[in-house]
Amino acid sequence: MSTISGIRLTATYHILGNETLALARAQGICLEQSVEFPDELVPDGFIRDHVVGKVESIRPLSPQVHEALISYAQESVGTEFTQLLNVLFGNTSLQRGIRLVDFTLPGSMLSEYPGPRYGISGLRERLNIPLRPLLATALKPMGLSARELAALVQKLATGGIDIIKDDHGLADQSFAPFKERVEMCAEAVARSNQLTGGKCIYVPNITCSSEVFHEKALFAKQNGCGGLLYAPGLAGYDRMRALSSDTSIGLPVFMHPALLGSFVVDPDGGISHSLVFGKLGRYAGADATIYPNFGGRFAFTKDECREIVDGCISKIGTIKPIFPMPGGGMNIGRINELKEFYGNDVILLVGGGLFTHGPDVADNCRYFRSLVE
Amino acid sequence: MSTISGIRLTATYHILGNETLALARAQGICLEQSVEFPDELVPDGFIRDHVVGKVESIRPLSPQVHEALISYAQESVGTEFTQLLNVLFGNTSLQRGIRLVDFTLPGSMLSEYPGPRYGISGLRERLNIPLRPLLATALKPMGLSARELAALVQKLATGGIDIIKDDHGLADQSFAPFKERVEMCAEAVARSNQLTGGKCIYVPNITCSSEVFHEKALFAKQNGCGGLLYAPGLAGYDRMRALSSDTSIGLPVFMHPALLGSFVVDPDGGISHSLVFGKLGRYAGADATIYPNFGGRFAFTKDECREIVDGCISKIGTIKPIFPMPGGGMNIGRINELKEFYGNDVILLVGGGLFTHGPDVADNCRYFRSLVE
Repeated sequence: MSTISGIRLTATYHILGNETLALARAQGICLEQSVEFPDELVPDGFIRDHVVGKVESIRPLSPQVHEALISYAQESVGTEFTQLLNVLFGNTSLQRGIRLVDFTLPGSMLSEYPGPRYGISGLRERLNIPLRPLLATALKPMGLSARELAALVQKLATGGIDIIKDDHGLADQSFAPFKERVEMCAEAVARSNQLTGGKCIYVPNITCSSEVFHEKALFAKQNGCGGLLYAPGLAGYDRMRALSSDTSIGLPVFMHPALLGSFVVDPDGGISHSLVFGKLGRYAGADATIYPNFGGRFAFTKDECREIVDGCISKIGTIKPIFPMPGGGMNIGRINELKEFYGNDVILLVGGGLFTHGPDVADNCRYFRSLVE
Repeated sequence: MSTISGIRLTATYHILGNETLALARAQGICLEQSVEFPDELVPDGFIRDHVVGKVESIRPLSPQVHEALISYAQESVGTEFTQLLNVLFGNTSLQRGIRLVDFTLPGSMLSEYPGPRYGISGLRERLNIPLRPLLATALKPMGLSARELAALVQKLATGGIDIIKDDHGLADQSFAPFKERVEMCAEAVARSNQLTGGKCIYVPNITCSSEVFHEKALFAKQNGCGGLLYAPGLAGYDRMRALSSDTSIGLPVFMHPALLGSFVVDPDGGISHSLVFGKLGRYAGADATIYPNFGGRFAFTKDECREIVDGCISKIGTIKPIFPMPGGGMNIGRINELKEFYGNDVILLVGGGLFTHGPDVADNCRYFRSLVE
């Protein structure tokens, strides 16, 4: 007979269906996400009383959509992030018309998830930028050689960009192999910083095969990279959590949204923007989270972007707030609008748009920088 | 200037929109999934000619849905599975109304993905079951102790089940900690096999924190487990690929669908059932793939299940076919229907239903077994 603390985490779901159907579906979630057993077979005693999920409340958002708050025993998760995801939405992801919109962990569980190493305050300190929005861009296009990318880095860094990240499409291709690229680009940033006195960082893409992941992260650190880009959609949130908490690396982590879109694009199913790009990334150690801004070439709305910011900065125990890093088809002409929407605690990611503003990239960077100073 | 082979992989997308819109969106995919750069900035030469994706064909499926075949340079992927996912659907996942339905790799890329170690033939050989469908069940409910689970294992194994897997909700909880559970359940199977002369295997859930993943897999192997359960939705396809190809482990891998549902439930977006549960799992080394069968408590249709089977067994170079493993609210009364639908090359996964058929679980197993012999 196991002992159980009685302490519970809660999850909020939006469920398609009228009141009767939604309640039945909520009760289904309680079983599915815990014992995964027909109700009549659930043993009486602590399994029925504690292990099975509980509908704590249910309320209509509209006649055909209900919001259910369901609690689970903290013991059903234990201490692993993978199992947290599993309890929150594992099998229920396979049902249509149920969306996981939020969750809250009890204080007793928070110690398992220290969250980001740096967050907003720590990254500002490393970059020596106490107040203004941070400026970021992406190295592209795929197909350039490491030498060409490094030449580009030098222009961007001397122009005043704070964070130069690999485009997420740069992996370990023959065009610009990872190690060669990291060496040359990190060196180009260091050289530029010596000239400008700045603290620009180069952030290579570390999303790669499991077998070489730690080796590549370490290589990036040893070559002076100031952060790492990682896409949890391609290789899992848990590896990001492990990377962030790995003291042998200890670099800021920039989360990229590749392949995560499928979690959010169905408004009736999947997981909320706030969780996918915000809170889950933050629990899993991201210091900044990249996502498509409203009004770009993706279809995210202002409300969805606000939700993401909320997931980045809302109070969660002692877990640090992290930078929202909107990008995706931005251009310099929109900087004032973005400053107004996001305030100062934002990383403005302008990729291709930085090249279209005028013929000289370094000049474009200087202009971009002048808009936030 | 990089050299490029001219060899290309292809991906098939279903795109919402009339002919004009769908073609424009297809051309958008070509840029987004390769150079991620505005068209006017793409350098002429090999980047424009080879690196940018190409619309190879487009045809209407209905006036409002078009199917586009797009090719990419094999060099844009390189050799990593993470980057394969990225090129196929990374940023495009963030767009509504575009679904990745299939992909084909050229022979020159297939050598990077050996696929499953065992597949259908290898698993049949290990279990000494040359012809009939395989029988599987899941240990549940969460909350039982390791000792209680092991007692259950003994009944299931002596009753004639071939594969006894952890319920995917069993992780490393205080109820039944991983190592204790593995030791006791593996021992219970071994004892039962001695009595019956059978080759039943116990398959623990190895989805866990990155830091302890290899240690746990090795522990399972050293304790005589006959396979490992892994959920790529919770921790990434790539770690499964690495697990499957790790010669220090070398066990059959059973893929679980937790959290993968969000990729398939929106019929207009996400990724096809055939890829998510079939082909991607197979490329990433799964020997069997678990998914919700039609007519269970999940909403998968017969057509979707047929698609998954197709992803499991269709000819892909020398990559072995793998077992479809339908489950999710199955019961013994449906075995004949399932045999008819799937034929012999299937693992029939009956979980809770195995407990409801009659009062004695071992008797239920014997009856279940008699239906396939």
